[in-house]
Amino acid sequence: MHTEQLDVRSTSHSELIDITDRVEQVLRKSKATSGLVHVFVPHTTAGVTINENADPSVVHDVLAALEQAVPWRQGFYQHDEGNSAAHVKASMMGSSVTIPVVAGRMAFGTWQAIYFCEFDGPRTRRVIVTVAQ
Amino acid sequence: MHTEQLDVRSTSHSELIDITDRVEQVLRKSKATSGLVHVFVPHTTAGVTINENADPSVVHDVLAALEQAVPWRQGFYQHDEGNSAAHVKASMMGSSVTIPVVAGRMAFGTWQAIYFCEFDGPRTRRVIVTVAQ
Amino acid sequence: MHTEQLDVRSTSHSELIDITDRVEQVLRKSKATSGLVHVFVPHTTAGVTINENADPSVVHDVLAALEQAVPWRQGFYQHDEGNSAAHVKASMMGSSVTIPVVAGRMAFGTWQAIYFCEFDGPRTRRVIVTVAQ
Repeated sequence: MHTEQLDVRSTSHSELIDITDRVEQVLRKSKATSGLVHVFVPHTTAGVTINENADPSVVHDVLAALEQAVPWRQGFYQHDEGNSAAHVKASMMGSSVTIPVVAGRMAFGTWQAIYFCEFDGPRTRRVIVTVAQ
Repeated sequence: MHTEQLDVRSTSHSELIDITDRVEQVLRKSKATSGLVHVFVPHTTAGVTINENADPSVVHDVLAALEQAVPWRQGFYQHDEGNSAAHVKASMMGSSVTIPVVAGRMAFGTWQAIYFCEFDGPRTRRVIVTVAQ
Repeated sequence: MHTEQLDVRSTSHSELIDITDRVEQVLRKSKATSGLVHVFVPHTTAGVTINENADPSVVHDVLAALEQAVPWRQGFYQHDEGNSAAHVKASMMGSSVTIPVVAGRMAFGTWQAIYFCEFDGPRTRRVIVTVAQ
């Protein structure tokens, strides 16, 4: 297996950051032609997901819909830091995605991209990419 | 690793389609006795999840609850195609599931099935199954 | 690959149970120094997620926010058992998590823990841990 760590810097409080090209670079360096690419976020107020990269309004709408489903302020939150919504959204999106490799490339559909999901930024974050052959 | 592509045809706008038997067939062809089965959806308005296959009303209730948490129409959506809710639900369910293989079978609980999640159909869709030993 | 089954006993209706140490033990027994750890829940009213283990109020807030997004009682539920919300939450959290292994340890961030998510307990549950090298 081939493992690499990426640094990601978020600049907003809530933000989806396209890291597809950087993950693709790790895959290329691994020289794997088949297998699985695993992308892991070692944080509890950030996640990772796969979604559309063609129209930036999709990213806006995903963040807005998550905020409506899990509002930042709720009377029942007990966590002192006040960022409970970020923890919930992180678990809803998940801490990792896994993508099959076919002929040396991630087998993505036309519009798919890997998004680092910042839910309590801006912060300096890490992503761990593993290529399993 | 063994990789195969399946074609899935949805017939409704929102629909969970049981693909367990087809994934099981791929596993059998791979002849793997242990390892992991990875099921990936290369789309951004569809996902994949594992849930109960005994009572069809569970599928109805999952779709209805997702629709309530992420309504199809919202004043704040900006995406022109009008299918933002499908993108959000796809990320909530996720683009892949991974199942352990024990003694040549997916180590499922009694009621578990793999569901392709159509959130903006009907469409012709694809699923990529990878068996890692 | 190394596979082990863990038994988990929940004591409440909704509950997040930290199983990190038990998964870590399986990893140690596997003697893997690199690879991936896969944690799978073979149930449809329970899931698994990674979140913060420092402040117990985070767990409270995650459960409360999920309950608000997917209320236990809804007029539109059809499933006779009355536990549809548990099925939805299970799919939202997911049936598995996968964690990279670096230098023989799960590459967790400071506050990360693996939580078994009970959404319709109390019950005796199982978890299947696979270490892929």
